Amino acid sequence: MHGLHLTADLRGCAPAQPLMTQPNALRRLCLAAAQDAGLQAVGELFHHFTPAAPALGAAQAGITGVVLLAQSHLAVHTWPELGAVTIDVFVCNFQGNHSRCAHIALERLVEAFAPGEVTRQELQRAGAHPDLLRA
Amino acid sequence: MHGLHLTADLRGCAPAQPLMTQPNALRRLCLAAAQDAGLQAVGELFHHFTPAAPALGAAQAGITGVVLLAQSHLAVHTWPELGAVTIDVFVCNFQGNHSRCAHIALERLVEAFAPGEVTRQELQRAGAHPDLLRA
Repeated sequence: MHGLHLTADLRGCAPAQPLMTQPNALRRLCLAAAQDAGLQAVGELFHHFTPAAPALGAAQAGITGVVLLAQSHLAVHTWPELGAVTIDVFVCNFQGNHSRCAHIALERLVEAFAPGEVTRQELQRAGAHPDLLRA
Repeated sequence: MHGLHLTADLRGCAPAQPLMTQPNALRRLCLAAAQDAGLQAVGELFHHFTPAAPALGAAQAGITGVVLLAQSHLAVHTWPELGAVTIDVFVCNFQGNHSRCAHIALERLVEAFAPGEVTRQELQRAGAHPDLLRA
């Protein structure tokens, strides 16, 4: 069994939607996407950038955030100034096969941003011993 | 210009080395790797797992951690019970080309674990407008 790393790079996301600029909205979405997909959050951290260009209001600055999972991690970066978002969901599969959970979480996140365009990729990561557990 | 996502999956790492089980040791390494490579940390979060198998001492449990970067993120997961480590360095390249920085940070992290085996992969992520800045 191998770890699975899914990425989705989004374009054409409406810059004014709360998920692009409000850390609490993005945090709630990420935690719900993980939980509803059967992934266990063990920590989370979200950072709200401030725009370097003074013409842009603070409310338009993007967010970078991560949810640490028992199964590895989920990361989202938003660029409202570009209508762009990147999403990563990585499940190590060291405790069993969480690949389906990863796909469910990713799709939930992608759909929430209602992008005009999505580029998806996936990596097979190093294999695992399925009988090792940790929580 | 495209974002660059580098991964390294390590095997054959000595389980007893502090980087595998001591969050502060891993945090220091990750922050130093980012800074020395010219990447700007904006936050960090490290979680120390507890082993599900009672036969394993707490000191043997792994760590999952992330450094949020102005340029995207750096993530490390350790499994001392397997001698395994996964590393991600993602630079969005929306502010300029940080690809060289990403390679420098990744190599510093890989070398620090002195692995017996390394599987490296890289993904080209969505492109960017190089004239947009944020800090």
